[in-house]
Amino acid sequence: MAYSPITPMAKFELFSEQWQPKVVAEMNDYQFKVVRLEGDFVWHSHADTDETFIVLDGSLRIDFRDGAVELAAGDMFVVPKGKEHKPFAASEVKVMLIEPSGVLNTGDEDQGERTAQNDVWI
Amino acid sequence: MAYSPITPMAKFELFSEQWQPKVVAEMNDYQFKVVRLEGDFVWHSHADTDETFIVLDGSLRIDFRDGAVELAAGDMFVVPKGKEHKPFAASEVKVMLIEPSGVLNTGDEDQGERTAQNDVWI
Repeated sequence: MAYSPITPMAKFELFSEQWQPKVVAEMNDYQFKVVRLEGDFVWHSHADTDETFIVLDGSLRIDFRDGAVELAAGDMFVVPKGKEHKPFAASEVKVMLIEPSGVLNTGDEDQGERTAQNDVWI
Repeated sequence: MAYSPITPMAKFELFSEQWQPKVVAEMNDYQFKVVRLEGDFVWHSHADTDETFIVLDGSLRIDFRDGAVELAAGDMFVVPKGKEHKPFAASEVKVMLIEPSGVLNTGDEDQGERTAQNDVWI
């Protein structure tokens, strides 16, 4: 049987829209998603789960109410559950997110156009 | 408050031993571990969980009873729960593993010297 690796970076050739995470893999009830981010997101938190950011290309800042973390390509950060955060990228950054299936990108509330459709595979 | 990114690749400067995963981050009840692999591991499976491999540097083959997958740097693969597998690297490869806390590297049985200590942070 032939098995194929998943190459997250290669998935970015398949889409150009920003702030719309696409699922590339599942592990138990968790999903790996790739997303292009640029500019400021909305403040939000996830009451029930941590959320992992891995920067694949570019630079990402994650703002917290009491500070921030700067991530370069190859860096990762786990935002603790319940912690308010706001991603920001001065120029487009390619990111992989890891979180349980069904988690809304805008956190516990629907925030209109910023709330992305879930379970979109690429 | 100052927050620090985690840089998995930088953790490899802190150890040289092979087949001994080191925890670099936790997300809920999952752990991210970095490990150096070279040569052949033992056949094993994890009855209760999938296991994710992300290759950071080098090349990794994961053998299955009915095939294999070849991973280059930047590639990932999720081994389904219960599936027998055996990692192999012709030369040393740097890998990040993601799996629930408490999972033994040799699967459901202790396999002697190949069974690594768990929860070793770096």
